[in-house]
Amino acid sequence: MIESGRRYRARKPRRGDLPIATIAELAGVSPPTVSKVLNGRSGVGEQTRQRVEALLRDHGYRRRPDGGLMHSIEVVFHQMLPAIAMEILRGVQEVASTDDCAVGFTDVRPRMRAGLPWVEPLLLRQPTAVITVCSLVTAEHSEKFAASGIPFVVIDPVGDLFPTPTVGSNNWSGALAATRHLLDLGHRRIGVLTGPVKDLSARARLDGFRAALDYAGVPFDRKLERCGFFTFEDGQDLGGDLLALSEPPTAVVCGNDLQALGLYAAAHQAGLRIPHDLSVVGFDDIDQAAWLAPPLTTVRQPFAEMGATAARLALTLADGRPLPQERYELGTALVVRGSTAPPR
Amino acid sequence: MIESGRRYRARKPRRGDLPIATIAELAGVSPPTVSKVLNGRSGVGEQTRQRVEALLRDHGYRRRPDGGLMHSIEVVFHQMLPAIAMEILRGVQEVASTDDCAVGFTDVRPRMRAGLPWVEPLLLRQPTAVITVCSLVTAEHSEKFAASGIPFVVIDPVGDLFPTPTVGSNNWSGALAATRHLLDLGHRRIGVLTGPVKDLSARARLDGFRAALDYAGVPFDRKLERCGFFTFEDGQDLGGDLLALSEPPTAVVCGNDLQALGLYAAAHQAGLRIPHDLSVVGFDDIDQAAWLAPPLTTVRQPFAEMGATAARLALTLADGRPLPQERYELGTALVVRGSTAPPR
Repeated sequence: MIESGRRYRARKPRRGDLPIATIAELAGVSPPTVSKVLNGRSGVGEQTRQRVEALLRDHGYRRRPDGGLMHSIEVVFHQMLPAIAMEILRGVQEVASTDDCAVGFTDVRPRMRAGLPWVEPLLLRQPTAVITVCSLVTAEHSEKFAASGIPFVVIDPVGDLFPTPTVGSNNWSGALAATRHLLDLGHRRIGVLTGPVKDLSARARLDGFRAALDYAGVPFDRKLERCGFFTFEDGQDLGGDLLALSEPPTAVVCGNDLQALGLYAAAHQAGLRIPHDLSVVGFDDIDQAAWLAPPLTTVRQPFAEMGATAARLALTLADGRPLPQERYELGTALVVRGSTAPPR
Repeated sequence: MIESGRRYRARKPRRGDLPIATIAELAGVSPPTVSKVLNGRSGVGEQTRQRVEALLRDHGYRRRPDGGLMHSIEVVFHQMLPAIAMEILRGVQEVASTDDCAVGFTDVRPRMRAGLPWVEPLLLRQPTAVITVCSLVTAEHSEKFAASGIPFVVIDPVGDLFPTPTVGSNNWSGALAATRHLLDLGHRRIGVLTGPVKDLSARARLDGFRAALDYAGVPFDRKLERCGFFTFEDGQDLGGDLLALSEPPTAVVCGNDLQALGLYAAAHQAGLRIPHDLSVVGFDDIDQAAWLAPPLTTVRQPFAEMGATAARLALTLADGRPLPQERYELGTALVVRGSTAPPR
C-alpha cells in the first residue's frame, strides 16, 4: 500500500497513461486535488486521498523518492533582454534555494519559431511550478496548466485575459516620475516613444506620461508621440522622426531603455549632444543604462524582486496554500544620471 | 530484485547514507563505475553491477522512475555578463531539449559572498551533469564532482590546473584579426587594454595583439598597454589614461566589449569622436555592441555554440561514453561596424 502524505512523481507517460485531468474525473475530484495528493500536500480528506492514490498507482504514477531532490521551478522566456532575464532568474533562485529547489531555464522561441507547442514538453517534466516571462501566454496555455495541476505565475503580463496570478511593476507611476523630472528641469516640449499600447505596460507608461503633463498644465502636442515596439530599431527610427521635426522636442521619454539606446544613436547621427541638445529618459534600468555615454536617466524596475515574488507565489500554490492576493505590482524608482539637463 | 540496466536516482541523503565514493570503496570499484550503474550505463560487468546495485539499495538509493523526467544539466555562473550568460543557456538548451532534459540555472555569487560552499547543494540535487561558466573553479571543486560521479564541463576556463573537459574560443586568433584590421586601416600607434593576464583568455588576446604588430613590423610601445579587469570601470579609467598621453594612440584594442564601453565613455568625456578621432575594437560581441553610437567593431565569440558543445560533452559523459577530445576551442570572427576608420 502506498503511504499517504508522501510525494509522488509522474513518470514519462506511455501508452495507457492518463493525464491528471482524467484521473481527477475518474476520482470525482478537481485536478488541483489530484495535484495535492501527487505532491503530498495537505487539505485532502483521507478517503479521497486513498481513492486518488489508488488511481494514480493504477495508471503508472510512481512515488517520487522522499525529499526535495526533484523540486524545480521552470522559468519560461520568449522575448526578453538578457539583462532583464538574468535579474529575474536571480530573484527566482534567491527564493528557490531556500527550499532546495532547482531553477529551470526554458527559452520557448526555438519551439515557437518551428510552430511546435511549448506547454506540453514542460508539463512532461512535471516541474513543481512554472513562471512565464512570456508575452505570448494565452488563456489556452493557462487552462493547460490549470488542468495539469502545475501552479503557474505570469511576470509582466501584457494582457489580463485569464485568472492567473501575475507580478508586474508600477509602470504608470514610473512614467509619471520620469516626466515630472523633465518638467522640473524646465522642459515643456517633451516627446514620447511608446511600446505597443495594446500591452498593459506600454499603455500604463503612456498614461503616466500624459498625467504628468496634465498636472503641470502643459498641453500635449500629439505630433511628439510615436508608438512602436520595444526595440532599438524603433527607438532609432521613431526617435529620428521626432528629431527631424521643424520644432523638435527638447526631451524625450522612451518606452524602455532599448528605445533610449536607439534614440542615442539617432541623436548621434543628427549631430545632437545628450543632454546639452536633448534630454533622454529610459525605462527598466538594464545594466547598459549606466554604461552609456552619458549614463542614462531611467526608471528602475525591480526585476530580481519581481522574480522572487513570483517564486514565492508559485511555491505557495505548490504547497496548496491560498495566495494573499493574485495581482502584484512592485514599485518603480527614477534613477537620475547624466542624460537629462535643463533645456538650452 | 532490482533490474539491471535501469536508471537509479539518489534521494536526498539522510543519516546513514553513504556518498558514492564510499559505495565505490565498499564495492572495490571506482566512483565512475558506481555512477555508471546508478545511471544504467553500459560498460560494467554483470557481477560488479550486481554487487554495486545491492550496496546502492542497502544505502538508500532508489531507482528513478522509468524515463527521462528527471534529467537535468545544471549551468553554474559566477561573474558573467547577462548577454553572454543567456547565449550560453540557449546553446545548452538547444542540445538538452533534444534529450528531453531540463536546463538548470545556478548563480553561485550569493553563496560565495556568504562564504558558503556551492558544490554540495548542487550535488544534492543530483543533476545529470554540471556545466560551469565560473572563473573560480578550482582543482578541489573538480575533485568533488569526480568523486560524486557527476559529469562536469568548464566553459571558458581561466586556468588549466585540472583534468576537466573545457570549451573555449580562439582568443589569440580573434585578437590577431582585430589588430590586423586596424593595421590595414593604416593605424600604427595602437593601444591595448587587457583583462588579468594570469587568465588564459586575457593572455591569449594580448599575445594575438602583439603577434599582429610583429608580423606587420610595427614596434610596440609598452606605454600604450594597460592591464586591468574585464569591467566598464577599468575600460573608462585605463582608456582615459591612454587618451591623456602626450602622444595618445589613434586606435585601441580592448580586452572585451565592456572595456570598450568604458573607453567610449572616456572618449566622450575627452571630447573625442569615435571613429573620427579614435578607432575602438572590442571582444565578445555582446548585444550592446551593435546598439552603441557608433556600433562597435568587435570579435565575436560563439557563446551559444560554446554552450551547445559543453552540453554535448556533458551528455556524452553522462552516457558513459568517452569524449573525442577534452579541450575544445571554437572559432572567433571579426565583426566590422562603425567604430573603426583610418586615422586622421
